[in-house]
Amino acid sequence: MEYLIRKPTLLIDRKKCLNNISKISIKARKNNLIFRPHFKTHQSKIISQWFRDAGVDKITVSSFMMADYFASAGWEDITIAFPVNLRELDQINHLSSKIKLNILVSDINSISRLEKGLRSNTGVYIEIDTGYNRSGLGVKDYQQIDIALKQLLSSRQLKFKGFLCHAGDTYNAKSKVEVISIHDNNINSLNDLKRNFVSIAPELKISIGDTPSCSIADNFNGIDEIRPGNFVFYDLMQENIGSCTLNEISLIVLCPVVSVNSIREEIVIYGGAIHMSKEFIIDKSGNKLFGKVVLPGENLHWGDVLKNTFLAGISQEHGIIKTDAEGLKRIKIGDLVGILPVHSCLTANLMSDYIDQDKNRLDHMNSQYNKDPYLR
Amino acid sequence: MEYLIRKPTLLIDRKKCLNNISKISIKARKNNLIFRPHFKTHQSKIISQWFRDAGVDKITVSSFMMADYFASAGWEDITIAFPVNLRELDQINHLSSKIKLNILVSDINSISRLEKGLRSNTGVYIEIDTGYNRSGLGVKDYQQIDIALKQLLSSRQLKFKGFLCHAGDTYNAKSKVEVISIHDNNINSLNDLKRNFVSIAPELKISIGDTPSCSIADNFNGIDEIRPGNFVFYDLMQENIGSCTLNEISLIVLCPVVSVNSIREEIVIYGGAIHMSKEFIIDKSGNKLFGKVVLPGENLHWGDVLKNTFLAGISQEHGIIKTDAEGLKRIKIGDLVGILPVHSCLTANLMSDYIDQDKNRLDHMNSQYNKDPYLR
Repeated sequence: MEYLIRKPTLLIDRKKCLNNISKISIKARKNNLIFRPHFKTHQSKIISQWFRDAGVDKITVSSFMMADYFASAGWEDITIAFPVNLRELDQINHLSSKIKLNILVSDINSISRLEKGLRSNTGVYIEIDTGYNRSGLGVKDYQQIDIALKQLLSSRQLKFKGFLCHAGDTYNAKSKVEVISIHDNNINSLNDLKRNFVSIAPELKISIGDTPSCSIADNFNGIDEIRPGNFVFYDLMQENIGSCTLNEISLIVLCPVVSVNSIREEIVIYGGAIHMSKEFIIDKSGNKLFGKVVLPGENLHWGDVLKNTFLAGISQEHGIIKTDAEGLKRIKIGDLVGILPVHSCLTANLMSDYIDQDKNRLDHMNSQYNKDPYLR
Repeated sequence: MEYLIRKPTLLIDRKKCLNNISKISIKARKNNLIFRPHFKTHQSKIISQWFRDAGVDKITVSSFMMADYFASAGWEDITIAFPVNLRELDQINHLSSKIKLNILVSDINSISRLEKGLRSNTGVYIEIDTGYNRSGLGVKDYQQIDIALKQLLSSRQLKFKGFLCHAGDTYNAKSKVEVISIHDNNINSLNDLKRNFVSIAPELKISIGDTPSCSIADNFNGIDEIRPGNFVFYDLMQENIGSCTLNEISLIVLCPVVSVNSIREEIVIYGGAIHMSKEFIIDKSGNKLFGKVVLPGENLHWGDVLKNTFLAGISQEHGIIKTDAEGLKRIKIGDLVGILPVHSCLTANLMSDYIDQDKNRLDHMNSQYNKDPYLR
């Protein structure tokens, strides 16, 4: 296989990936939670099958287009966890006549437009904001929530399902303790909310979604459903927060080494912002980093992260690795290095398809390998 | 057309784009420079034709794949301005047997590998680093350059063309004055270099590439060729440096408004990191911003940037616009807003295809519209 890897290539360690899926599946089962994983991270029909094999039959996506992609792979219970886009009502009508489709109301003004525009029965969650301040109705804003809920409960085709929250603020947490503190606060607020409205909507479900909480927390009191996505691959951002170990990160970008500067102890790779995104983290030593470096060996398996070595700079197609004398000894022009990405969702979205260590190619919704004569 | 725009869509103002092409073409002609524009910004065969119409017949690209894409559109003189990737020598051989292909040597150790691997005549530039510290041989490192040059001059199939430099440090400049200062220093160093080696390589050309210098500077003394790329669209990063005005930015991302928070004076759009990238600038007022906002009107033309309004946050598919009372009056749920991007190259690469204001669809190398049933 190696002779075919001529340009940046996204490689999955299937075993690590399956372990990640299994770990969260088991946790959900133990806590009596509906497990509705978010597929925006992998966007792959082949990987979706690995979830099906683990017993998953309900999924989350972040766009109508993605719902449609997975519906065409046989998924029949899909939540679009993104504020409903009123410009796609025709498409939503079409899809919700075929599968169980749930949409998200984040703005009270969208409800009357949905009432007018939707003809098929469609599940609706009210998006709740517990402090991330991105979208949704405030978790304490009972007055607005009451208005929205009553409108939904009196609707013929909109079927109220419950309250959905994405605690994206845990992605900015600096430690596990901080994640748990945010999460526990959210659990309390969401339980208050449930208690307040359960009498008028006895079937209402509480759905939460962030990977840090779902990975780290053990308290899911009053929660009905979890929707994490990133855990399937994990990445350096999650490792930095404490959601995973480096060894659980299940994908790397294989990048050709195109130049070595031994004076500056730097290595230039073919692999940049159009492959890995411009997302960075500041590590515990204060380094701004765009990736860590591993060396792919036999059968494309990779070992430990190289010490004193990290992806320090990135432009459109170039990456600059800072390393040391040991790194310079091990990495030569023409070699392939592996980059553990900072943000696996964005990396997979950019790379657009994968290979696994058995040399199988995996699809991605953006996949273009059919058009590329150099990918065989 | 408007009724078809249901999701984030990249819109080009063709007139602005043609003006940008024309302005730099004229400047090149006036200064007696070979104009070899970089096509990594647009990656479009249709837009490449606009350059052909302006008299361009030589181009620059940043990957072999891109060279191949444009060769298939009839371009016959292409420089791959990226450190040569030794894993693609078979492909390079194939293409350089058909067109005039130039590659880049950034590491002296690649030359012997090229000598062994290349069978067709291939033009070679030595990459020179004038202080950006990304890749290339140091502009003062005459000893290394001399070794590289003599190896190339004695080669049968490697045809030495000259010295190529990308002064990427101008992208970090805070003003026109700073760009000119970096540029003038580079001009001096490159002229010293030319004087030093012209006796053994009398035909050697000096090629420079960055958009800020090519847009702002007037001194091209001793320079033979310019290779800017970004100027075709420009963007907020270039406007911030002083390379262009806001009115010269020739593309916007049209994004549906999915939620409005009038208390926080925020607007949530369908448009995030997978559409615009995570690139940001800090503006003169200290705001971290991911885009500025315009309103598309009749015939998809857009007006001035909205005051007190900017894209302040971005996640995978969400964008958060901060605005004021006036913005809230003008922007409603279900509307389309236009985002002037921070970095147009990355935005075009992510969006993968364009429309123009005459409702024509334009290709991008990553284009996928043939596969998307919702783009018609």
